[in-house]
Amino acid sequence: MAIVKPSLAKGTRDFSPLEMERRNFIFNTLKRIFKKYGYSEIQTPSFENLSTLTGKYGDEGDQLIFKILNSGDYLSKVSDDVLGHKNSVKLIPQISEKALRYDLTVPFARYVVMHQNDITLPFKRFQIQPVWRADRPQRGRYREFYQCDVDVVGSESLLNEAEFILIYWEALRQLGLKDFTIKINNRKILTGIAEILGKPELIVDMTVAIDKLDKIGLDGVNKELLERGFSEADLEVLKPIVLLEGNSQEKLESLKTVLASSEKGLQGIEEIEAVFSYVAAFNVDEGVLGNDVAVDITLARGLNYYTGCIFEVKTNEVAMGSIGGGGRYDDLTGMFGLKNLTGVGVSFGADRIYDVLEELDLFPRTSISSSKVLIVNFDKNLEYYTIPLLASLRHEGIAVELYPIAAKLKKQMSYADAKQIPFVLLVGEEEVKSDVLTLKNMESGDQMKIELATLIEMMKG
Amino acid sequence: MAIVKPSLAKGTRDFSPLEMERRNFIFNTLKRIFKKYGYSEIQTPSFENLSTLTGKYGDEGDQLIFKILNSGDYLSKVSDDVLGHKNSVKLIPQISEKALRYDLTVPFARYVVMHQNDITLPFKRFQIQPVWRADRPQRGRYREFYQCDVDVVGSESLLNEAEFILIYWEALRQLGLKDFTIKINNRKILTGIAEILGKPELIVDMTVAIDKLDKIGLDGVNKELLERGFSEADLEVLKPIVLLEGNSQEKLESLKTVLASSEKGLQGIEEIEAVFSYVAAFNVDEGVLGNDVAVDITLARGLNYYTGCIFEVKTNEVAMGSIGGGGRYDDLTGMFGLKNLTGVGVSFGADRIYDVLEELDLFPRTSISSSKVLIVNFDKNLEYYTIPLLASLRHEGIAVELYPIAAKLKKQMSYADAKQIPFVLLVGEEEVKSDVLTLKNMESGDQMKIELATLIEMMKG
Repeated sequence: MAIVKPSLAKGTRDFSPLEMERRNFIFNTLKRIFKKYGYSEIQTPSFENLSTLTGKYGDEGDQLIFKILNSGDYLSKVSDDVLGHKNSVKLIPQISEKALRYDLTVPFARYVVMHQNDITLPFKRFQIQPVWRADRPQRGRYREFYQCDVDVVGSESLLNEAEFILIYWEALRQLGLKDFTIKINNRKILTGIAEILGKPELIVDMTVAIDKLDKIGLDGVNKELLERGFSEADLEVLKPIVLLEGNSQEKLESLKTVLASSEKGLQGIEEIEAVFSYVAAFNVDEGVLGNDVAVDITLARGLNYYTGCIFEVKTNEVAMGSIGGGGRYDDLTGMFGLKNLTGVGVSFGADRIYDVLEELDLFPRTSISSSKVLIVNFDKNLEYYTIPLLASLRHEGIAVELYPIAAKLKKQMSYADAKQIPFVLLVGEEEVKSDVLTLKNMESGDQMKIELATLIEMMKG
Repeated sequence: MAIVKPSLAKGTRDFSPLEMERRNFIFNTLKRIFKKYGYSEIQTPSFENLSTLTGKYGDEGDQLIFKILNSGDYLSKVSDDVLGHKNSVKLIPQISEKALRYDLTVPFARYVVMHQNDITLPFKRFQIQPVWRADRPQRGRYREFYQCDVDVVGSESLLNEAEFILIYWEALRQLGLKDFTIKINNRKILTGIAEILGKPELIVDMTVAIDKLDKIGLDGVNKELLERGFSEADLEVLKPIVLLEGNSQEKLESLKTVLASSEKGLQGIEEIEAVFSYVAAFNVDEGVLGNDVAVDITLARGLNYYTGCIFEVKTNEVAMGSIGGGGRYDDLTGMFGLKNLTGVGVSFGADRIYDVLEELDLFPRTSISSSKVLIVNFDKNLEYYTIPLLASLRHEGIAVELYPIAAKLKKQMSYADAKQIPFVLLVGEEEVKSDVLTLKNMESGDQMKIELATLIEMMKG
């Protein structure tokens, strides 16, 4: 067996014990909150039949799906024609029938359709699993990364939208973030604007241009709107939209005037108002609706997919793209033949949240090491005195280890240091004689005499 | 977009909310115990460079590795010769450079070598992740399944082996199993027997034959030993080994006589004795060493890999293959150029353990649903009374949901039933007037009047 210099596959990462503790802090926080809102966990397989995934993400997306080579003599049934022309694209379906999950949405749709007779609607599920994309790796973009999705299907109640705002708010606060914006828009408002102008195909161009107001001013935005196909007459109609100001309620009021003639547009506004009034009923802090949630009509995320409210979340504490998003959709399961099933869901970008928490130094200190105590191994003969101590501590559920051999004290202390074990228990001849142990606090350096019962209470507390 | 009838890829599974609760019960039990023994979690990527995996699992194993097709125009640089001959095997390295993880051992070895400057020895890690194998799927055998590995590298102390016995024992008991056997053998004992007979190449044949004693008797075993290449003289030497009886201590004593002339063999016996004496020092129940741990010299698991103690665990409560195994190895990282690093570790077969717990009905009842309470939605006008109740309960960390619309009571009760939500809170006109709520216990069917503060105490308890 030749010796291979080990390396990671491009765009993938190992996670060390410290990184895992931190990642689990994020995942466990999200799971706890999802469950508190009545969501249950499911998981789907890492790979799906290629036919389940192909055609769901556009041509570009299809190319980024990792295909798995068939097993055995996978070339035996390949047509000579395709092979002879070295046609990579046409050959794929002949040598690959499976592919790695690209997101959690399509597998969830498949799940709902396949298990429609087993699940009770509304079906509230969350899913935290890795996905894979053959993107060019770069800073903050990986080929394997986690998605954390939470969705409810089979309920059109806007209470769900309101609860997703609360889930975002509660999760981000519990992760330690203080200043973030949960942006909300409604696809029907964008449809309403398109109706008024008679230019539905230019909706995305419009939002892109309006979004630049802060940078290029009204004249700049108007110039760009003209370049993107709008007329001078359109600019007049759009002006109050471009200049939309004030808090969310004021923005909605202005929009009501602009969209007065569009039933669809007004419906979108009403939906957001209903969501806000649900949120308020939860007796949340004033800051939630007053500051942390904001109407943003430039939000055009997943326009072909979302049909009602649209969400996007960003932190205002560090420069970072969106750390979450989602919305209401009406035809998730249509691709698998189950029509008219509405749903709404949001997603958390765990890898970006990790980077934010790291930059802001928000990870809890206590969650770094598994062991709370290292028992020093002074002498093989003392092991039979120290092992029952070890057993007693573990019996109480305390994570503790005995250094496995009687190495030099310095080496054992370095080990505790490197693993960030907070306490070291010194059990030498003297301690055996007196039955009083010596405990060293590794952070302060303080040493104290302590009896086993007291130590147990202290470590459990 | 054509409508695809959804299906799962062969050999893969979805996990429903109930199945996830049960799987998490297993994983969380294992994690808690691993941490209590000072082990820390790591994760490695789902796919590795093909060169990292190839050649580590034998020819048969190599064929079972799922290869990932290169992205883009993967055929462009393929040699016409290989393509023209439709040589599936030779083409693989030209169109695939990555593959899915086949086990957690090789990626762990790569991890240790790549991070050798960051980790402190002894390095105690656990890893719970899926692995993938292109096996023919059958009952209980999947193409995607989880491995739960716990290993320490860089410590030759037999305290580690003793603690793995305790980890197995504690984990299986906490999962609810009562009758299981943790088999132990030592590679050096097998080497010793081979030394005495001068037939090291027949070690596996020997263990296979001896293992059949219960079924075919001494004559049958001897017949098979002769067929497998042993001589009549060998049979005389092997007789006390074949007929090895009694408890572990008695077996070891008999082996000492047989292996008196083999230094290596005696060393293997001493190692097991040392492990047992460490286990005893933990003040464990008598039943552990007296009954649950058993010397079994037919245990020849991973013979080319393990160098010291070997473990295998089986349950005696249902018919099922081994539910765990492991051992001591001396050259795990040699394949990546880091020599002389000893280690020892064990693995839990989570999927088989799941089947065992299900068959024995050992999964806890309490862990099935996420919500503890469903609040019935009687009327949209009452929502603004019920939502603050919902908020109060969640504020106390209680998982609770409000049915999202005022559907028929029967429908809402069916929903609670299907999700196995234990309590339903009825909040109608009467409750709003009196501020006294009605709580229904879904299991017993009992209804009671209750105030919010009492309800909170009850749900938290």
